[in-house]
Amino acid sequence: MEICAFCRIVSGELAAYKVYEDESCLGFLDERPVFPGHTLLIPREHYGTLAELPSSLVGTVFSAVSIIARSVETGLGADGAFIGINNKVSQRVPHLHVHIIPRHFKDGLRGFFWPRQKYADEAEATAIQEKLAAAARLIANG
Amino acid sequence: MEICAFCRIVSGELAAYKVYEDESCLGFLDERPVFPGHTLLIPREHYGTLAELPSSLVGTVFSAVSIIARSVETGLGADGAFIGINNKVSQRVPHLHVHIIPRHFKDGLRGFFWPRQKYADEAEATAIQEKLAAAARLIANG
Repeated sequence: MEICAFCRIVSGELAAYKVYEDESCLGFLDERPVFPGHTLLIPREHYGTLAELPSSLVGTVFSAVSIIARSVETGLGADGAFIGINNKVSQRVPHLHVHIIPRHFKDGLRGFFWPRQKYADEAEATAIQEKLAAAARLIANG
Repeated sequence: MEICAFCRIVSGELAAYKVYEDESCLGFLDERPVFPGHTLLIPREHYGTLAELPSSLVGTVFSAVSIIARSVETGLGADGAFIGINNKVSQRVPHLHVHIIPRHFKDGLRGFFWPRQKYADEAEATAIQEKLAAAARLIANG
Protein backbone atom coordinates (compact mmCIF):
# COMPACT_ATOMS: atom_id res chain seq x y z
CA MET A 1 0.00 0.00 0.00
CA GLU A 2 1.24 3.47 -0.87
CA ILE A 3 1.99 5.59 2.15
CA CYS A 4 0.23 8.95 2.34
CA ALA A 5 2.49 11.85 1.30
CA PHE A 6 1.68 13.82 4.45
CA CYS A 7 2.43 10.83 6.70
CA ARG A 8 5.79 10.72 4.93
CA ILE A 9 6.35 14.38 5.81
CA VAL A 10 5.46 13.62 9.44
CA SER A 11 7.92 10.72 9.53
CA GLY A 12 10.65 12.84 7.94
CA GLU A 13 10.89 10.66 4.85
CA LEU A 14 9.75 13.60 2.69
CA ALA A 15 11.17 17.08 3.19
CA ALA A 16 8.97 20.11 3.77
CA TYR A 17 9.40 23.73 4.76
CA LYS A 18 8.04 23.42 8.28
CA VAL A 19 6.64 26.52 9.94
CA TYR A 20 4.88 25.09 12.99
CA GLU A 21 5.19 22.00 15.18
CA ASP A 22 3.57 20.82 18.34
CA GLU A 23 2.93 17.41 19.85
CA SER A 24 -0.09 16.67 17.69
CA CYS A 25 0.23 18.95 14.63
CA LEU A 26 2.60 19.99 11.89
CA GLY A 27 2.43 23.05 9.65
CA PHE A 28 4.45 23.41 6.45
CA LEU A 29 4.45 25.48 3.27
CA ASP A 30 2.26 24.27 0.41
CA GLU A 31 4.71 23.70 -2.42
CA ARG A 32 2.32 25.29 -4.92
CA PRO A 33 0.98 28.27 -2.98
CA VAL A 34 -1.99 30.42 -3.92
CA PHE A 35 0.13 33.17 -2.34
CA PRO A 36 3.59 32.89 -0.72
CA GLY A 37 3.26 31.67 2.85
CA HIS A 38 0.28 29.41 2.04
CA THR A 39 0.53 26.84 4.82
CA LEU A 40 -0.94 23.38 5.35
CA LEU A 41 -1.67 22.40 8.94
CA ILE A 42 -2.15 18.69 9.56
CA PRO A 43 -2.62 16.40 12.54
CA ARG A 44 0.43 14.14 12.81
CA GLU A 45 -1.81 11.11 12.97
CA HIS A 46 -3.57 10.11 9.79
CA TYR A 47 -7.24 11.12 9.62
CA GLY A 48 -8.90 11.50 6.26
CA THR A 49 -11.34 14.33 6.90
CA LEU A 50 -12.56 16.67 9.61
CA ALA A 51 -15.42 14.26 10.30
CA GLU A 52 -12.88 11.57 11.19
CA LEU A 53 -10.82 13.78 13.50
CA PRO A 54 -11.48 12.71 17.11
CA SER A 55 -13.19 15.40 19.15
CA SER A 56 -10.22 15.37 21.55
CA LEU A 57 -8.03 16.73 18.72
CA VAL A 58 -10.41 19.31 17.24
CA GLY A 59 -9.42 22.08 19.65
CA THR A 60 -5.72 21.28 19.29
CA VAL A 61 -5.77 21.36 15.49
CA PHE A 62 -7.75 24.58 15.18
CA SER A 63 -5.77 26.34 17.90
CA ALA A 64 -2.72 25.67 15.73
CA VAL A 65 -4.64 26.97 12.70
CA SER A 66 -5.42 30.13 14.67
CA ILE A 67 -1.73 30.58 15.51
CA ILE A 68 -0.78 30.32 11.84
CA ALA A 69 -3.59 32.67 10.79
CA ARG A 70 -2.14 35.25 13.17
CA SER A 71 1.43 34.49 12.06
CA VAL A 72 0.80 35.32 8.40
CA GLU A 73 -0.25 38.77 9.59
CA THR A 74 2.51 39.41 12.11
CA GLY A 75 5.24 37.55 10.24
CA LEU A 76 4.42 38.24 6.61
CA GLY A 77 2.44 41.46 6.81
CA ALA A 78 -0.76 39.97 5.44
CA ASP A 79 -4.02 41.87 5.98
CA GLY A 80 -5.89 38.67 6.85
CA ALA A 81 -6.07 34.96 6.14
CA PHE A 82 -8.28 32.61 4.24
CA ILE A 83 -8.78 29.23 5.86
CA GLY A 84 -10.09 26.32 3.82
CA ILE A 85 -10.60 22.58 4.05
CA ASN A 86 -11.64 20.28 1.24
CA ASN A 87 -13.30 17.16 2.58
CA LYS A 88 -13.32 14.37 -0.01
CA VAL A 89 -14.29 16.53 -3.00
CA SER A 90 -11.28 18.49 -4.37
CA GLN A 91 -9.16 16.84 -1.67
CA ARG A 92 -5.97 15.68 -3.36
CA VAL A 93 -4.18 14.15 -0.36
CA PRO A 94 -6.43 11.93 1.79
CA HIS A 95 -4.96 13.21 5.07
CA LEU A 96 -6.90 16.06 6.69
CA HIS A 97 -5.14 19.34 5.92
CA VAL A 98 -6.20 22.88 6.66
CA HIS A 99 -5.09 25.54 4.17
CA ILE A 100 -4.10 28.88 5.69
CA ILE A 101 -3.61 31.42 2.91
CA PRO A 102 -2.27 34.94 3.51
CA ARG A 103 -4.60 37.55 2.03
CA HIS A 104 -4.13 41.19 1.16
CA PHE A 105 -6.88 43.64 0.37
CA LYS A 106 -7.31 43.79 -3.42
CA ASP A 107 -5.11 40.73 -3.95
CA GLY A 108 -7.41 39.63 -6.76
CA LEU A 109 -8.49 36.32 -5.19
CA ARG A 110 -12.14 35.82 -5.97
CA GLY A 111 -12.32 33.03 -3.48
CA PHE A 112 -15.10 30.53 -3.48
CA PHE A 113 -17.85 33.09 -3.37
CA TRP A 114 -19.05 33.03 -6.91
CA PRO A 115 -21.38 32.25 -8.40
CA ARG A 116 -23.95 32.44 -5.63
CA GLN A 117 -27.49 31.16 -5.99
CA LYS A 118 -30.81 31.93 -4.37
CA TYR A 119 -33.35 29.54 -2.93
CA ALA A 120 -36.34 29.53 -5.28
CA ASP A 121 -38.76 30.13 -2.43
CA GLU A 122 -39.30 29.63 1.27
CA ALA A 123 -40.46 26.06 0.73
CA GLU A 124 -37.15 25.08 -0.84
CA ALA A 125 -35.14 26.67 1.96
CA THR A 126 -37.34 25.10 4.63
CA ALA A 127 -37.03 21.65 3.08
CA ILE A 128 -33.22 21.90 3.10
CA GLN A 129 -33.26 23.32 6.61
CA GLU A 130 -35.36 20.44 7.94
CA LYS A 131 -33.18 17.74 6.39
CA LEU A 132 -29.98 19.34 7.65
CA ALA A 133 -31.30 20.05 11.12
CA ALA A 134 -32.55 16.47 11.51
CA ALA A 135 -29.20 15.07 10.38
CA ALA A 136 -27.30 17.38 12.76
CA ARG A 137 -29.51 16.37 15.70
CA LEU A 138 -28.85 12.71 15.00
CA ILE A 139 -25.08 13.26 14.89
CA ALA A 140 -24.99 15.61 17.89
CA ASN A 141 -26.98 13.16 20.01
CA GLY A 142 -25.20 10.16 18.50
CA MET B 1 -23.58 52.03 16.44
CA GLU B 2 -25.02 49.55 13.99
CA ILE B 3 -25.53 46.11 15.47
CA CYS B 4 -23.87 43.22 13.66
CA ALA B 5 -26.31 41.26 11.45
CA PHE B 6 -25.24 37.93 12.95
CA CYS B 7 -25.68 39.23 16.51
CA ARG B 8 -29.21 40.17 15.43
CA ILE B 9 -29.79 36.60 14.26
CA VAL B 10 -28.51 35.32 17.62
CA SER B 11 -30.86 37.64 19.50
CA GLY B 12 -33.79 36.63 17.30
CA GLU B 13 -34.27 40.11 15.90
CA LEU B 14 -33.45 38.84 12.40
CA ALA B 15 -34.91 35.59 11.09
CA ALA B 16 -32.74 32.78 9.73
CA TYR B 17 -33.17 29.18 8.64
CA LYS B 18 -31.47 27.61 11.63
CA VAL B 19 -30.00 24.13 11.23
CA TYR B 20 -27.91 23.77 14.37
CA GLU B 21 -27.91 25.17 17.90
CA ASP B 22 -25.95 24.52 21.02
CA GLU B 23 -25.08 26.60 24.06
CA SER B 24 -22.25 28.48 22.32
CA CYS B 25 -22.93 28.18 18.58
CA LEU B 26 -25.59 28.72 15.97
CA GLY B 27 -25.74 27.33 12.42
CA PHE B 28 -28.08 28.69 9.74
CA LEU B 29 -28.45 28.66 5.97
CA ASP B 30 -26.52 31.27 4.00
CA GLU B 31 -29.23 33.19 2.18
CA ARG B 32 -27.13 33.26 -1.00
CA PRO B 33 -25.69 29.74 -1.10
CA VAL B 34 -22.90 28.52 -3.34
CA PHE B 35 -24.93 25.29 -3.28
CA PRO B 36 -28.19 24.58 -1.42
CA GLY B 37 -27.47 23.67 2.18
CA HIS B 38 -24.55 26.11 2.42
CA THR B 39 -24.45 26.80 6.15
CA LEU B 40 -22.82 29.47 8.30
CA LEU B 41 -21.71 28.40 11.77
CA ILE B 42 -21.07 31.21 14.24
CA PRO B 43 -20.23 31.55 17.90
CA ARG B 44 -23.18 33.22 19.65
CA GLU B 45 -20.84 35.74 21.19
CA HIS B 46 -19.37 38.36 18.89
CA TYR B 47 -15.77 37.71 17.85
CA GLY B 48 -14.47 39.24 14.66
CA THR B 49 -12.06 36.58 13.44
CA LEU B 50 -10.64 33.18 14.33
CA ALA B 51 -7.65 34.93 15.91
CA GLU B 52 -10.01 36.65 18.35
CA LEU B 53 -11.91 33.49 19.32
CA PRO B 54 -10.85 32.48 22.86
CA SER B 55 -9.04 29.15 22.95
CA SER B 56 -11.74 27.81 25.27
CA LEU B 57 -14.25 28.12 22.38
CA VAL B 58 -12.11 26.79 19.52
CA GLY B 59 -12.93 23.14 20.15
CA THR B 60 -16.62 23.90 20.64
CA VAL B 61 -16.95 25.88 17.41
CA PHE B 62 -15.10 23.39 15.22
CA SER B 63 -16.85 20.39 16.76
CA ALA B 64 -20.09 22.02 15.59
CA VAL B 65 -18.52 22.60 12.17
CA SER B 66 -17.65 18.91 12.05
CA ILE B 67 -21.25 17.96 12.88
CA ILE B 68 -22.54 20.12 10.04
CA ALA B 69 -19.92 18.79 7.61
CA ARG B 70 -21.21 15.29 8.37
CA SER B 71 -24.84 16.42 8.20
CA VAL B 72 -24.58 17.71 4.63
CA GLU B 73 -23.53 14.19 3.66
CA THR B 74 -26.04 12.22 5.71
CA GLY B 75 -28.90 14.71 5.41
CA LEU B 76 -28.46 16.09 1.91
CA GLY B 77 -26.57 13.32 0.16
CA ALA B 78 -23.46 15.43 -0.51
CA ASP B 79 -20.22 13.63 -1.39
CA GLY B 80 -18.19 15.90 0.86
CA ALA B 81 -17.97 19.41 2.23
CA PHE B 82 -15.90 22.48 1.71
CA ILE B 83 -15.15 24.49 4.82
CA GLY B 84 -13.96 28.08 4.54
CA ILE B 85 -13.32 31.11 6.69
CA ASN B 86 -12.49 34.60 5.47
CA ASN B 87 -10.62 36.55 8.10
CA LYS B 88 -10.78 40.30 7.44
CA VAL B 89 -10.18 40.12 3.66
CA SER B 90 -13.36 39.11 1.77
CA GLN B 91 -15.16 38.99 5.12
CA ARG B 92 -18.45 40.79 4.64
CA VAL B 93 -19.90 40.42 8.15
CA PRO B 94 -17.38 41.21 10.92
CA HIS B 95 -18.55 38.31 13.13
CA LEU B 96 -16.56 35.10 12.77
CA HIS B 97 -18.47 32.69 10.54
CA VAL B 98 -17.45 29.34 9.15
CA HIS B 99 -18.87 28.40 5.74
CA ILE B 100 -19.81 24.74 5.34
CA ILE B 101 -20.65 24.07 1.69
CA PRO B 102 -22.02 20.72 0.44
CA ARG B 103 -19.92 19.39 -2.44
CA HIS B 104 -20.57 16.76 -5.09
CA PHE B 105 -17.98 15.22 -7.34
CA LYS B 106 -17.94 17.14 -10.63
CA ASP B 107 -20.10 19.93 -9.21
CA GLY B 108 -18.06 22.43 -11.19
CA LEU B 109 -16.73 24.42 -8.23
CA ARG B 110 -13.14 25.35 -8.95
CA GLY B 111 -12.66 26.39 -5.38
CA PHE B 112 -9.84 28.58 -4.32
CA PHE B 113 -7.17 26.44 -5.84
CA TRP B 114 -6.28 28.40 -8.90
CA PRO B 115 -4.13 29.94 -9.99
CA ARG B 116 -1.28 28.36 -8.02
CA GLN B 117 2.23 29.74 -7.99
CA LYS B 118 5.66 28.32 -7.37
CA TYR B 119 8.42 29.64 -5.15
CA ALA B 120 11.15 31.01 -7.42
CA ASP B 121 13.82 29.02 -5.58
CA GLU B 122 14.74 27.48 -2.26
CA ALA B 123 15.95 30.82 -0.93
CA GLU B 124 12.52 32.38 -1.40
CA ALA B 125 10.75 29.48 0.31
CA THR B 126 13.25 29.44 3.17
CA ALA B 127 12.89 33.19 3.74
CA ILE B 128 9.11 32.86 4.00
CA GLN B 129 9.45 29.77 6.19
CA GLU B 130 11.75 31.55 8.65
CA LYS B 131 9.50 34.60 9.01
CA LEU B 132 6.40 32.48 9.53
CA ALA B 133 8.04 30.06 11.93
CA ALA B 134 9.43 32.89 14.04
CA ALA B 135 6.02 34.58 14.17
CA ALA B 136 4.31 31.31 15.12
CA ARG B 137 6.81 30.65 17.92
CA LEU B 138 6.20 34.11 19.35
CA ILE B 139 2.42 33.58 19.34
CA ALA B 140 2.55 29.98 20.60
CA ASN B 141 4.78 30.98 23.50
CA GLY B 142 2.46 33.95 24.08
